[in-house]
Amino acid sequence: MALTPDLIKQTHAAIAPATMRTPTVHAARLSLQLGFDLYLKLENLQHTNAFKARGALAKLLTLSEDERKAGVIACSAGNHAQGLAYHASRLGIPAVIVMPEGTPFNKVKKTKDFGAEVVLHGAGFDESVQFTLDLAAERGLTFVHPFDDPVVVAGQGTVALEMLEDQPDLDVIVVPIGGGGLIAGMAMAAKSVKPEVVIIGAQAAHFDAVKAQFDGGPTHFDGATLAEGIAVKAPSAANVAIIKDCVDRIETATEAEIEAAIFDLLSLEKIVAEGAPGAGLAVIEKLAPEFQGKTVGLVICGGNIDSRLLSTLILRGLVRDGRITRLTFEISDTPGQLARISHIIGEKGANVVEVIHQRMMQSVSLKQAELEIVIEARDKQHVAEVLSELRGAGFKVRADSEIA
Amino acid sequence: MALTPDLIKQTHAAIAPATMRTPTVHAARLSLQLGFDLYLKLENLQHTNAFKARGALAKLLTLSEDERKAGVIACSAGNHAQGLAYHASRLGIPAVIVMPEGTPFNKVKKTKDFGAEVVLHGAGFDESVQFTLDLAAERGLTFVHPFDDPVVVAGQGTVALEMLEDQPDLDVIVVPIGGGGLIAGMAMAAKSVKPEVVIIGAQAAHFDAVKAQFDGGPTHFDGATLAEGIAVKAPSAANVAIIKDCVDRIETATEAEIEAAIFDLLSLEKIVAEGAPGAGLAVIEKLAPEFQGKTVGLVICGGNIDSRLLSTLILRGLVRDGRITRLTFEISDTPGQLARISHIIGEKGANVVEVIHQRMMQSVSLKQAELEIVIEARDKQHVAEVLSELRGAGFKVRADSEIA
Repeated sequence: MALTPDLIKQTHAAIAPATMRTPTVHAARLSLQLGFDLYLKLENLQHTNAFKARGALAKLLTLSEDERKAGVIACSAGNHAQGLAYHASRLGIPAVIVMPEGTPFNKVKKTKDFGAEVVLHGAGFDESVQFTLDLAAERGLTFVHPFDDPVVVAGQGTVALEMLEDQPDLDVIVVPIGGGGLIAGMAMAAKSVKPEVVIIGAQAAHFDAVKAQFDGGPTHFDGATLAEGIAVKAPSAANVAIIKDCVDRIETATEAEIEAAIFDLLSLEKIVAEGAPGAGLAVIEKLAPEFQGKTVGLVICGGNIDSRLLSTLILRGLVRDGRITRLTFEISDTPGQLARISHIIGEKGANVVEVIHQRMMQSVSLKQAELEIVIEARDKQHVAEVLSELRGAGFKVRADSEIA
Repeated sequence: MALTPDLIKQTHAAIAPATMRTPTVHAARLSLQLGFDLYLKLENLQHTNAFKARGALAKLLTLSEDERKAGVIACSAGNHAQGLAYHASRLGIPAVIVMPEGTPFNKVKKTKDFGAEVVLHGAGFDESVQFTLDLAAERGLTFVHPFDDPVVVAGQGTVALEMLEDQPDLDVIVVPIGGGGLIAGMAMAAKSVKPEVVIIGAQAAHFDAVKAQFDGGPTHFDGATLAEGIAVKAPSAANVAIIKDCVDRIETATEAEIEAAIFDLLSLEKIVAEGAPGAGLAVIEKLAPEFQGKTVGLVICGGNIDSRLLSTLILRGLVRDGRITRLTFEISDTPGQLARISHIIGEKGANVVEVIHQRMMQSVSLKQAELEIVIEARDKQHVAEVLSELRGAGFKVRADSEIA
């Protein structure tokens, strides 16, 4: 079976009754900043908080009665696992999910919560995949690939049909790329409905396998990425063929850009997005000069970001914007210093958030103390004003932002 | 002019072209947990990220040409300020916003960003309001009250029209209450469209002025609340009269319940909500046994929560769930202790997140050291297993969760 626009349309009709019709919303603050209209398709509100539920459901609906009884199996620690587990459980189909050993508890738990049997096996995905295929054969289970399957890809492609139905004036659609399933399906669907729409793929600079094949350049696999969901080294050849045919361009985003984009989505648009859509927004922010006058769409393809990571990311975002800054003072260890410093900071209109008084650091002499004060300010300019006032009063102080 | 269902419908027609038609989405994970279907109206995606933009726009559209030229004024540090500033600027109407001195930078900045003139005056709202009225008279500006105005209330009421249009099967709608504008408008609108729908108000237990008047009980004003947007001591008499007529019941939520509800919305539904909708979800979670078999709606009335607060709230949520726990050890200050402890923690399948080795604490003797280890575990049961293993190996250790 090959992917066709008709298959995507039929798949949409099939999955629609049990799929959330996620909204496509105008990103008001980001549009203001970027200078053009940006629309976000909120697949982070989809069942299991990612578009993957679409492809998984599409596949489940094509199983024979015997295959349904025997059950399905997948190898995934992420959104594919949860999407498949959710719809399999809903349809009464047994589901086994294989995850590498050492998968974070939270991911195991979320998948178990949806009623799947989770098997932890293998040190990494390569080992786990082989084990999964063996287990599928042994137990007569249908293996559901996360992206190398035309039915799954057709399911993902339905996202584009809804986006263009809800916002027909989109000139550009930006789609994150991992294994290529989402963009292959969406590009084919979008171009069949609106041939002139421009489809741009977004990859993490650390995992640019599809871009490399698309542009004919070298690949980069430089360790971990925030955009876990698109950290795929071996994309599907079938998807790459479709991408070469239907996608206009692929751009990459660095880890710092992805992090900043996730923060922007959270703080400006009140949307919890994972790394993959962060890469998408980062690419849009980079291409903003070219997009003036256009209407641009982005798939917020998932919202499954680890809460602890998110908490840290928010703080780092505030630090980046100068809203939170750590000042380190070397002060003589005499009374009244803290009072003088706090007074100056307060006078300049900044708030003291945290004080760490430290007498043990090796970097200062025994008669001195190191004082760290975390302040909240309006922005970097405000921090500079506070620093200048403190230095004017004779304090030896440096801000973290000055070092970086 | 009095509030009527017709006024709300006319207002809807008037504001719709410049108001975001926010989606009403099924809260899949929360519904699973609660045992009934919960729908969320995402007014956190509204312009300026709160429903307040509706009432502000409604008022602006009723101004005469002369009033438009002279401009408007409001006293607010929150969502009303931003909503009014946004639409006034869009319509070319000058806007002055008075905020109490000491208003956080971020709130001033967000309002200035929308083109308003911000005047900081007064120690608290009472002082600022009088100053605002004086300034309005002096400069010939139209004062726009955040909730004590039938046109503003009609604007807020339009939220209910959209909710019931998008999800006509709602049996119950829960609405946060501050000054009473949102619920007065929504209750009248909802009952005019679907008389049998049950409207339940949610207040912060620390600010329960409307509940007190509704139930005839005493008021409680116990300091600050996370739900800043609904921290109103003097609700409008006109709104309270409508509420007594159209609202079925009012319940309150404690600060801890509001905090947990905001965390649930973020981690389960990927929605950034401020305190007021947190109070709403907290009330729903409390009334869950009564809601079985019903279809319940909640207005996520705003998403403007301070980022630093949100970051801390996420961490506290993880601590509450047992996913992050601080273990404090009193160990003899000899080599190898840290290695033994980390080994045991790892063997039990928990992760070490942070280590603080402290030799200066007064709580331990000079020959001992205090070691703090922050671990990530599956849940509280898992923490208990880790603790029991450590104690079995002879370590003197306590967990923060055991103290609380």
